[in-house]
Parts: sequence; C-alpha cells; structure tokens
Amino acid sequence: MSRGDAASADKGHDTVARVAAIIGPGLVGGSLALALKARRAVGKVIAVARTEETLLAARELGVADETTHDLGAAVAEADLVVLATPVLTIIAQLTAIAPHLRPGCLVTDTGSTKAAICCAAEAQLPAAVDFVGGHPMAGSEQTGVRAARADLFEGATWVLTPTEGVRPQALDRARRLVAATGARALVLSPEEHDEFAAAVSHVPHLLAAALAAQVGRLADDHAEAALMAAGGFRDLTRVADADPGLWRDIFATNQGATVRQMEPIIETLQGLVEMLGKGDMEALREFLHQARELRRRLDAHGRATRGE
Amino acid sequence: MSRGDAASADKGHDTVARVAAIIGPGLVGGSLALALKARRAVGKVIAVARTEETLLAARELGVADETTHDLGAAVAEADLVVLATPVLTIIAQLTAIAPHLRPGCLVTDTGSTKAAICCAAEAQLPAAVDFVGGHPMAGSEQTGVRAARADLFEGATWVLTPTEGVRPQALDRARRLVAATGARALVLSPEEHDEFAAAVSHVPHLLAAALAAQVGRLADDHAEAALMAAGGFRDLTRVADADPGLWRDIFATNQGATVRQMEPIIETLQGLVEMLGKGDMEALREFLHQARELRRRLDAHGRATRGE
Repeated sequence: MSRGDAASADKGHDTVARVAAIIGPGLVGGSLALALKARRAVGKVIAVARTEETLLAARELGVADETTHDLGAAVAEADLVVLATPVLTIIAQLTAIAPHLRPGCLVTDTGSTKAAICCAAEAQLPAAVDFVGGHPMAGSEQTGVRAARADLFEGATWVLTPTEGVRPQALDRARRLVAATGARALVLSPEEHDEFAAAVSHVPHLLAAALAAQVGRLADDHAEAALMAAGGFRDLTRVADADPGLWRDIFATNQGATVRQMEPIIETLQGLVEMLGKGDMEALREFLHQARELRRRLDAHGRATRGE
Repeated sequence: MSRGDAASADKGHDTVARVAAIIGPGLVGGSLALALKARRAVGKVIAVARTEETLLAARELGVADETTHDLGAAVAEADLVVLATPVLTIIAQLTAIAPHLRPGCLVTDTGSTKAAICCAAEAQLPAAVDFVGGHPMAGSEQTGVRAARADLFEGATWVLTPTEGVRPQALDRARRLVAATGARALVLSPEEHDEFAAAVSHVPHLLAAALAAQVGRLADDHAEAALMAAGGFRDLTRVADADPGLWRDIFATNQGATVRQMEPIIETLQGLVEMLGKGDMEALREFLHQARELRRRLDAHGRATRGE
C-alpha cells in the first residue's frame, strides 16, 4: 500500500528538470528550489546571486547544490532557468543569458508584471529555447533566502502567461513545474495578468501608501493619533513598508493598467465625498451594501473557479 | 508572596460599580462585562437587549447576572450605565434613559464617533449624573455576545472624551473602568477623536469598500481575476464585509472629518495617476519612499507615546 502511494505520488510529480538554474534565490526563488528538491522534481539546483552571503546561505539551507556569480556558466548547464529577480532586472538578465542558453531549455520567471517581460523574452531569446512567463501569487512579509520554505506556494495561484508562439510541450512543462510546488496554474495572456494584477495588487498598494502617508503626517502633528492607528490600520497599510525601488519597477512596467484601474476608484471616492457633503446617507448605505455584495460574489467566483 | 501579589492586583482594580447596566451585550458590551466580572470590578451586571436570544446567551455565558428588555428599570438600579449599541441607537437611548438614571450615576458608551453622542448627552442627561464618552479601539471580525471574551481589550487603546463640564471624579472613575479591562485610556476631545477616527478608520473603510466593489465588478466579467484576488487582497478588503447600516450611522455622525481626511487622499491618488501617465517613475519611487518613512515614524510615535 505504501509502495503504491509512493509510486502514484512520483507519477504526479515527475522530474521537471535535470539541472535547474535559479537566478535570484530569495524568498520566491529559494522556496521554489526547496519545493522542487523536496518533491525530487529536479536533479540539481544551481543558484546565482550577486552576494556571497546569499550564496552561502543558499548552500547552508539546502536551497542549492551549487552556487555561482556567473550567470552565463550557470544557465549553460541548465535545462530549466528561473529568473526570480525584480522585474527590470529580469528584463536585463534575459539579454545576458540569451547567448548561453542550451537548445530545448525552458526559461520562466516569477516577476510581478508579465507583458514587458514576455515581450523582452520574445525579442531576446533564441528560437531554440522556450519561454513561459510566470507569477506565483504568494509571498510573505519576510524577504531573502533565509525566509524560503518548501510549502510557500501550497494552494496558491501561479499565473502562467504563454504567448502565442509557445510550444504546447513547453506550457506542459511549466504546468508540471507549478504542480510540483503545490500551487494551482492559471493560464492568462500577459495583458490579462497585468490588468488583473493592477486591480488586485498594484492599485491597492498605492491606496495603502496614500493612506499611510496621510495618517503619518497627521501623527507628526498629533502623536495621539498614532495610538488610534493600531491593529486594523497597521494591517491595512503593511504593504506600504515594501521596497520602493522594487515597486517603482512594477509600476514602470504596468502604467497603463494601473491608471485604468485607479481612475474609476478615484471617481467612486469623489462620489462618496459628494454623498457625505450632501448628507445623502441612504446613498452611502446603498454603496456599502453593494460593495459587500460584490466582495461576497468575488469570493464565490473564486470558490467556483477553484471547483470548491 | 502570592498573597502580596493578590493584594496589589486588587488595589489596581478596585470596584468600579456596584451595579452595572450594560445596554447592548454584544461583542464589545459583552466583553466589557466579562472583563469587569473577571477582575471583580463590579458587584452585579444587568444586561439589556432587544432579543430574548441575546439575553439568554448573556446569562448562559456569565456575561450578565440579570437580564431585561426594560431599559428604564435596568438603569434605575445602576451606578454605572454603558451604552454599547450602534451610534444612532446610543443617541436615542440617551433620551430614553434620562428620566430613570440615579443621581451620581456614571454613564458612558462605546460608540465609534464621539462628538454627536457627547453633544446629545450634554443636552439630554440630568445634571446629577456624569457622562464620559468612550471608544475602545478593539474589535474582531466576529460580532454578537457569543464572540465576547474577557481579554478583548487587553493592551488596546480606549479613548475617553470628557467634555468641559465633566467632574474630575467622573473621569477618574471612567479611567478605572478602562484600566479594569486591561486597556490604556487615551483622553481626547470628542472632536479630536472624530478627526483621528476618520483618518485611521472611516476613510480606510471607504477605500476598502471602493476597492472591493471595483475588483468585484472585474470578477463578474472575468472570473479568473477572483483567483488572483486571494490572501493579501482579501485581508485588505475584509472590513468591506461589515454591516452597511452600522457604518451609515458612523458616517452620518462624522461627515465633516471624513470629507476633510478623504480629500487629500483623492488629491494624492490623482497626483499618482499623473506621475504614471507622464512615466515619472522617480517621482513615484520618491512618493513610495516617503510613505514608508511616514508609516515607520507613525509606528515610532505610537511606541514613544505608549512609553515603549
């Protein structure tokens, strides 16, 4: 019985790569490496990072079997390359790795926006390699390789954004990579991904930052306000503590969708100010009621699409 | 040694009331009753609610020693009255209890806005009773008496908003009430409270509702978007699931401050849309950097004011 179980488990998570090069073994790249190794979905992991400190930690934590600063040498050996660095770094690295890639290699990434990266990959990578963009919708407040864990992606949505020319075998391999982490693959076009990401992540980031800045200024003048800005407020604005450079890159590669998703929110807020100014409390109650219904339907859509 | 500890603990939490009438024994009122009873800060608790179900639960859970639907009879016996109902209900109940209150009784409340309530109390209550407005900054996603717990307020900020005419002894008693729950009293004017509450709670509520409505509409057209709106997004918009009627009352009694705190946020968001439109990514990075600094300073203000 236990033999049978093990065999079927192996069948579910067959080998995704002989040699995987993980570029940027931080929280996401490191967790991916740990997940692949835990399921024996990869023969060897080579990690590439700039600092010796990260590479040392990657070896110590069992994230990587080998480490190097040499991007070209690492990818020359790999049949799977994962770029897990910030968005603009990924775009630069696509150019850097292009001449060193092996024919038949699958290249993917974990960047927060997809259209700019997929466009760069199409332009830069040789025809003999496959590229499928990816974005695991999982994270943590912690960053860096020491926060990596094999179960980070368990049950999470992992968006894959194949462009039109991608071979079906390449998409299948990317799907097996995602399955090996315990995540659920969601296939979208790069543009769809970026529009949805603007709505559920990039615009909320700007709302949280605007709110944090506003209340921060208020507390500069009235320190007592800080005592009222506990619990719920801190949870709501926690994302505003993220790396500004990382997020500049995200917005730099998703300007259009962010503006498109932000403008109706600003209109809604202006409408609410008008209701408050006129004292039209029934309209305000109706808005709050609709928002609650829409959020509940959103949850139901999520459950239905996941087949729950 | 344990005798000495017990004695000093008793000293810290001496009796706040002989008979406390808790009007609205829900999450907040029920937790207050449990905290007072756990510290033996009250001789007897009488709970008043509309439904027999709530009163039965209050007796079963040890929230109340006696229960009644009769507001007048309950307060006639009490030397402490706590109104723990929604804001507009509190205002109506102040009028209803006024003729039944005992001289020397302390009346307080737990409403989310303070100026309208304190104004109504001044106008409605007899001179022989003391009123000190209150707002415990603690809650839970759950509501109702069955969610009540004695430690709900442990370490939380509990704002007290005495108006000018309030006797010092009455404020002392309100402070002892707060101390008996494990919360920290923060004394503000009703207007200061409402301005800060608009910034840290009422405006964030509208932002969360606007965001939930926007993404909910997107997911109506594209069910896949719901799969990307997991974890972080759901945490961010959880408050949008609250009771619309309860929040209408809050906004109805804090229109001015909500508009004052909302307008600069809308301006900030318009500025961000402009930066995105022009592709001025350095200005955007600088804004995100400033927002992070302001949020960190806000945390530092909070720690300093708490004496940490």
